[in-house]
Amino acid sequence: MTSRDGYQWTDASGLIRGVPSIGVIEPASNVNDQDQHYDVIVVGGGYCGLTATRDLALSGLRVCLLEGRDRIGGRSWSTNIGGYPFEMGGTWVSWGQPHVWREISRYDMRDQLECSYDFSQGVNHFSLGSEGGRRTMSHDEADRLITGATLKFVNVDGEYGKTIMPQPHHEFFNPAVKRYDKPSVADRIEQIKDDLSPDEMTALQAFVLLSSCAKPEESSFYEFLHWWALCNHDYAYCIEYLIKYKFRGGQSSFAIKFFEEALSTNRFSYALNSPVAKISDRDSHVEVSTRSGQKYKASRVVSTIPLNVLNDISFDPPLALGKQDAARVGHVNMCAKVHAECRNPELRSWVGVRYPDNKLMYAIADGTTPAGNTHIVAFGANHNPLKPEQDIEQTKRAVTGLVPAQIERLVFHNWVDDEFAKGAWFYPAPGLVTERLDDLRRRQGNILFANSDWAVGWRSFIDGAIEEGARAAKGVLDDLRKNSVQPKSSRL
Amino acid sequence: MTSRDGYQWTDASGLIRGVPSIGVIEPASNVNDQDQHYDVIVVGGGYCGLTATRDLALSGLRVCLLEGRDRIGGRSWSTNIGGYPFEMGGTWVSWGQPHVWREISRYDMRDQLECSYDFSQGVNHFSLGSEGGRRTMSHDEADRLITGATLKFVNVDGEYGKTIMPQPHHEFFNPAVKRYDKPSVADRIEQIKDDLSPDEMTALQAFVLLSSCAKPEESSFYEFLHWWALCNHDYAYCIEYLIKYKFRGGQSSFAIKFFEEALSTNRFSYALNSPVAKISDRDSHVEVSTRSGQKYKASRVVSTIPLNVLNDISFDPPLALGKQDAARVGHVNMCAKVHAECRNPELRSWVGVRYPDNKLMYAIADGTTPAGNTHIVAFGANHNPLKPEQDIEQTKRAVTGLVPAQIERLVFHNWVDDEFAKGAWFYPAPGLVTERLDDLRRRQGNILFANSDWAVGWRSFIDGAIEEGARAAKGVLDDLRKNSVQPKSSRL
Repeated sequence: MTSRDGYQWTDASGLIRGVPSIGVIEPASNVNDQDQHYDVIVVGGGYCGLTATRDLALSGLRVCLLEGRDRIGGRSWSTNIGGYPFEMGGTWVSWGQPHVWREISRYDMRDQLECSYDFSQGVNHFSLGSEGGRRTMSHDEADRLITGATLKFVNVDGEYGKTIMPQPHHEFFNPAVKRYDKPSVADRIEQIKDDLSPDEMTALQAFVLLSSCAKPEESSFYEFLHWWALCNHDYAYCIEYLIKYKFRGGQSSFAIKFFEEALSTNRFSYALNSPVAKISDRDSHVEVSTRSGQKYKASRVVSTIPLNVLNDISFDPPLALGKQDAARVGHVNMCAKVHAECRNPELRSWVGVRYPDNKLMYAIADGTTPAGNTHIVAFGANHNPLKPEQDIEQTKRAVTGLVPAQIERLVFHNWVDDEFAKGAWFYPAPGLVTERLDDLRRRQGNILFANSDWAVGWRSFIDGAIEEGARAAKGVLDDLRKNSVQPKSSRL
Repeated sequence: MTSRDGYQWTDASGLIRGVPSIGVIEPASNVNDQDQHYDVIVVGGGYCGLTATRDLALSGLRVCLLEGRDRIGGRSWSTNIGGYPFEMGGTWVSWGQPHVWREISRYDMRDQLECSYDFSQGVNHFSLGSEGGRRTMSHDEADRLITGATLKFVNVDGEYGKTIMPQPHHEFFNPAVKRYDKPSVADRIEQIKDDLSPDEMTALQAFVLLSSCAKPEESSFYEFLHWWALCNHDYAYCIEYLIKYKFRGGQSSFAIKFFEEALSTNRFSYALNSPVAKISDRDSHVEVSTRSGQKYKASRVVSTIPLNVLNDISFDPPLALGKQDAARVGHVNMCAKVHAECRNPELRSWVGVRYPDNKLMYAIADGTTPAGNTHIVAFGANHNPLKPEQDIEQTKRAVTGLVPAQIERLVFHNWVDDEFAKGAWFYPAPGLVTERLDDLRRRQGNILFANSDWAVGWRSFIDGAIEEGARAAKGVLDDLRKNSVQPKSSRL
């Protein structure tokens, strides 16, 4: 099945919109009674919505999932082209991420992971490019370079962040940490710049911006400290947890498990291609209207609409001001993620950085395709914006600006112009998290709001999406049970 | 409510059997229709059984939990005496343990953890006792000592175990690792003994036996490698994940959440004080008989009976030979865990080891009681067995053999003589895991077997119990759904 989402390019085919994915659902809807009153409507079929949907359907509730796209997975989905999976969005998972690992374990997929990097063959080095030129070093040397620079960056407490944020899943355990949500990444770099070598400066900026994919001056320093704490205050775990293990079959092979389990309950309705326009809370029930005018009714709604598009939905009564304001500010991650399949098998062990004078700043060799080509995945940030589909030649130059390569295929998803995301994974500007996290997490009447964008643990990650989906499902269950005058007996 | 389990002693009261716990359930049963045919009977109310019970009841099934004790929690439960929680069994949790953390997150208990140690005051050192005498060192020095010795112990691959077991939740990823299930801990120490200083030898043995609480010659070397991999192949994470964070309100404050959530479904029956004698699989259903002759019927049974007591239940048809054999071999952990409340506030920052000439080999100061006393928790292993209730003076000497202290109170649970456990947390002799893990995990007819003793991730831990409970619940759900001719509509 081919999704409308994503792009692929080869010299022979030119640019094609849409790529195949097992996350595309056919038929696109199984709703047969438009007047059905559901227990819960879940808006949005990313991991957060899928988790909420599955938990609620498993728990005996009649659930309807509404999704604007033709596929599930939200900001995490995979395509398979030429027998090889390309990850269009969120990719890596780890047993250091508890919520996603619980699901991998429960779906018995522990043995379906593979390692992105393979530092064993061919061009087995790290290249560092800056305005001063390009040089190569061993992976160990690169690790030492980035580790050293990052330790200076995070060392606000003389303990490399360990005392200022000792419990990453309880981020404000030490409330003094909030002060670090004032400075931006640029502010923090300014503080330590005299202590950084030119190479450290380049490597640090590229590495830190790999978390925000925004300009340094608009990226919260605090949020990086949170990522750092989640990664055990250790660069080795930044690699281990953030960019090492991916699904052999692609993310969509995981997402479909949630969907199929929900389906197996026979209590689960869904309608894809159904972008929601309005959510009206009538006290006794909630009415959800799609852009095409379909109306759905339920006792509760779980909105998993991401921050950057939350104000695109009309709420009646309106969203609380704190939510409106947070959504107006939005998050700043405008990542361009580009896959390049290259006729350069020798590049399998390459990693590289180039900052700031290139439209892709960080890339790793991520696999070998069945055709024997090297798959390189590259990330660009908003300091040097790239919209790959608008200029394929420019996109190819952005790849070859990192490493000389013969590009045979490009695959990508433009998240910035994606109407249902308007950005990639959540990364806040200074102030947003400390000022608005509680607002974003707060329920409003019969509507619960859940999204990885305001998770408290692995915020921005698939793990955070699952954390939030489980929270919303439990919230609905506890609430409906409390209000259920006469709980009915229940069966599968 | 006071449980029959556990013991407490003070000079004034003498030895008293039973301690109070919020894990004691009153009334002890809510079964009112003895002829009810349940969807599922769960045998055993530890975390594994509680997780299975909750997941199944949430999923719309009629579940009956049978538990032999007067309390929930199995090998993990807490008492509160004098306003202070004492952990009678499994204690520590971490966000590095994905299954338990998912539950802590879901029950919104992330902020209810506290750190066991506090290296800031008074007698702030580590004491190392051996037949050669007793000396003290700083905690940093002790860390270096144990780290150095442990690295030699685990370094079977020149990479400190990282290549032989890179994925701890997929333990046989590198099948070559199985060879390390032949040697015992004693065998491995014999291999490296010329490379260990006398202090390293003492500290290493005490530390490694803290995982098995058995004799070195009966403890599997492989299993320690698995623990090591789970702890990121790093001694710092052995501390971080295994012995750092505990619940401020005690384990029973966590266990009760599962029970209460199951109860809230109104589909959940339970009978405590109901030790199971026999489980008969009649193909069409399963009949479970208690020692007192009560019979319960269900479509499926989840047995969470621990390995060391599995052969104490009569199964009809009999257990598969692989299970019988594994249960006959059993696991070897015969831990004596003793809490001592000491009129020595200055000991709050003390940690100590003494091996082998003391009946408690490893202890840490674990808190300060409301009375201002230091709470010390001490562990003994089977190389020098201790049955605390049989000789209180001997038990006190075992504590003061570690550190001079004025003992005001003792609290403990004798797991070795506990008829429903016959041992503490799972630790295998050589060969058991590689030979019998698959047998133990295998379903038999309408009976599913789940226990932390045969988890694949954090086996032996609360995390593994939850992993297994979730696996069993999903197994039952998938199975009943598959066999359900006519799934019924369902409500809360």
